[in-house]
Amino acid sequence: MREFDEASLTDAVVKRFGETPDPRLRQVMQSLVRHLHAFIRDVEPSFEEWQAAITFLTRTGHKCDDVRQEFILLSDTLGVSMLVDAINHRVAGGATPTTVLGPFYVDNPPELPLGTELATTASGDRLHVSGRVTSANGAPLANAVVDVWQSDAEGFYDVQRPTGEAPELRARFRTDAEGRYHFWTVTPAAYPVPTDGPVGEMLKATGRHPMRPAHVHFMIAAPGYETLVTHVFADGDPYLDSDAVFGVKEALVRPFVLRPPGPAPEGRTMAEPWRQFTYDFALARAAG
Amino acid sequence: MREFDEASLTDAVVKRFGETPDPRLRQVMQSLVRHLHAFIRDVEPSFEEWQAAITFLTRTGHKCDDVRQEFILLSDTLGVSMLVDAINHRVAGGATPTTVLGPFYVDNPPELPLGTELATTASGDRLHVSGRVTSANGAPLANAVVDVWQSDAEGFYDVQRPTGEAPELRARFRTDAEGRYHFWTVTPAAYPVPTDGPVGEMLKATGRHPMRPAHVHFMIAAPGYETLVTHVFADGDPYLDSDAVFGVKEALVRPFVLRPPGPAPEGRTMAEPWRQFTYDFALARAAG
Ligand SMILES: [Fe+2]
Ligand SMILES: [Fe+2]
Repeated sequence: MREFDEASLTDAVVKRFGETPDPRLRQVMQSLVRHLHAFIRDVEPSFEEWQAAITFLTRTGHKCDDVRQEFILLSDTLGVSMLVDAINHRVAGGATPTTVLGPFYVDNPPELPLGTELATTASGDRLHVSGRVTSANGAPLANAVVDVWQSDAEGFYDVQRPTGEAPELRARFRTDAEGRYHFWTVTPAAYPVPTDGPVGEMLKATGRHPMRPAHVHFMIAAPGYETLVTHVFADGDPYLDSDAVFGVKEALVRPFVLRPPGPAPEGRTMAEPWRQFTYDFALARAAG
Repeated sequence: MREFDEASLTDAVVKRFGETPDPRLRQVMQSLVRHLHAFIRDVEPSFEEWQAAITFLTRTGHKCDDVRQEFILLSDTLGVSMLVDAINHRVAGGATPTTVLGPFYVDNPPELPLGTELATTASGDRLHVSGRVTSANGAPLANAVVDVWQSDAEGFYDVQRPTGEAPELRARFRTDAEGRYHFWTVTPAAYPVPTDGPVGEMLKATGRHPMRPAHVHFMIAAPGYETLVTHVFADGDPYLDSDAVFGVKEALVRPFVLRPPGPAPEGRTMAEPWRQFTYDFALARAAG
């Protein structure tokens, strides 16, 4: 047992985890060892390369703080977050597809009446959003909680602005008796994931751009249903085919239709052109 | 391209790295994606489990500072460091086997004359160490640099003691004209890898002890030869078959022979029992 050479080492490490009391942890650690060693055997790193990997991971950890999660960004940009999402949402069965939560959700957003506007100071093209929340077989869900958050027209979320500002472009609505939601906001812009850390360096070194196509985030909850975490993406965005975090699904893309000045929803009359999209969300029944 | 489902996602991410300018980086990133995704597909983590992994990595990064490298410790305890070592030392051809450097090497240790003692304040059973440094075919290497470092009889390295103390149980020697080295020290103890961080928690949760069998570290350099990084382990140590970092090789184990009081090397007369081991190191020719 004491002699671990290149051929026998992996089995020895797997065996060492064989006494893990929790069977799930044992399974995960043994699988991790097998796949991590397979990666090492595949690329055969030099000492310098392995040290560079250690340094990359260390700097990624040091970049993390209360408002920045560089390891989630790494998971996102390696497609791992979307893979975990896919694995955990296999039985769609008519339900709306899910996508990544992203780093900009804030718990308990301000609750607003249907029809009001998310933007308090943000400028940009106005955007009207509406649709219904239903079960997967089309039954309307009244009083469902619809959390919405998005970037402004420059591609920034409120939490990326100097601290101390009020919530902006984020709110909680509740669907009406027919499961409808509707509100005004501004048209979001495509934006880069944060590039001032190790993940940004990785993207640059690998010739990848950091952009995400313009989107509005939704998190929709109703008793008895799986909470739906998703985006609606703007059709025509140049980054739809190369989202830096692999979050785009065809069924989540909608035209953000340009409308002329004049009468508009919620009793408004618009002096400038505005945009509009609709999206009907279907929630899967909760498991169990 | 925009639709990435569970089946197509991995290929899409691999393809995204296809424009990496540096071919080696491209190879490493594409292999990383394939193996990391294979691990995810194998264990199918829940969102909570994946978040736990993110938190573990983040805490591992936060534990790292100028004198602590928790990611290297993670690499060591997962057997990855020894695998990288094995891959980079395939053509032994009569050379002494290598093992992990470990976290306690300090550059430019104090140079001492052959025959003197490493311990300035350390107590414990005295240990005499001697041997030769040769090429792989047995030619003695004169004036080779022999760096030595080790734990004390309680299992601590000098750098783990309160700062500001002088170097202890570490030195640099130079071989004589016949390639010989020899010195006095104290007998090292088995010791635990640091357990006050995430890696310690991992070891505990998986039912693994953190101990390394007693050993003396050597780093031996001579012009025209590969620098040899290795240990000599004490035969009979109870942790030889379960070294926490998988560093033991049979050829690196030597009896630390117990000797009675009386005449001893370097002209000493010992009042107490003492120990002795010898090790002849053979260096591989430098590549190229
Ligand atoms: Fe976003
Ligand atoms: Fe050591």
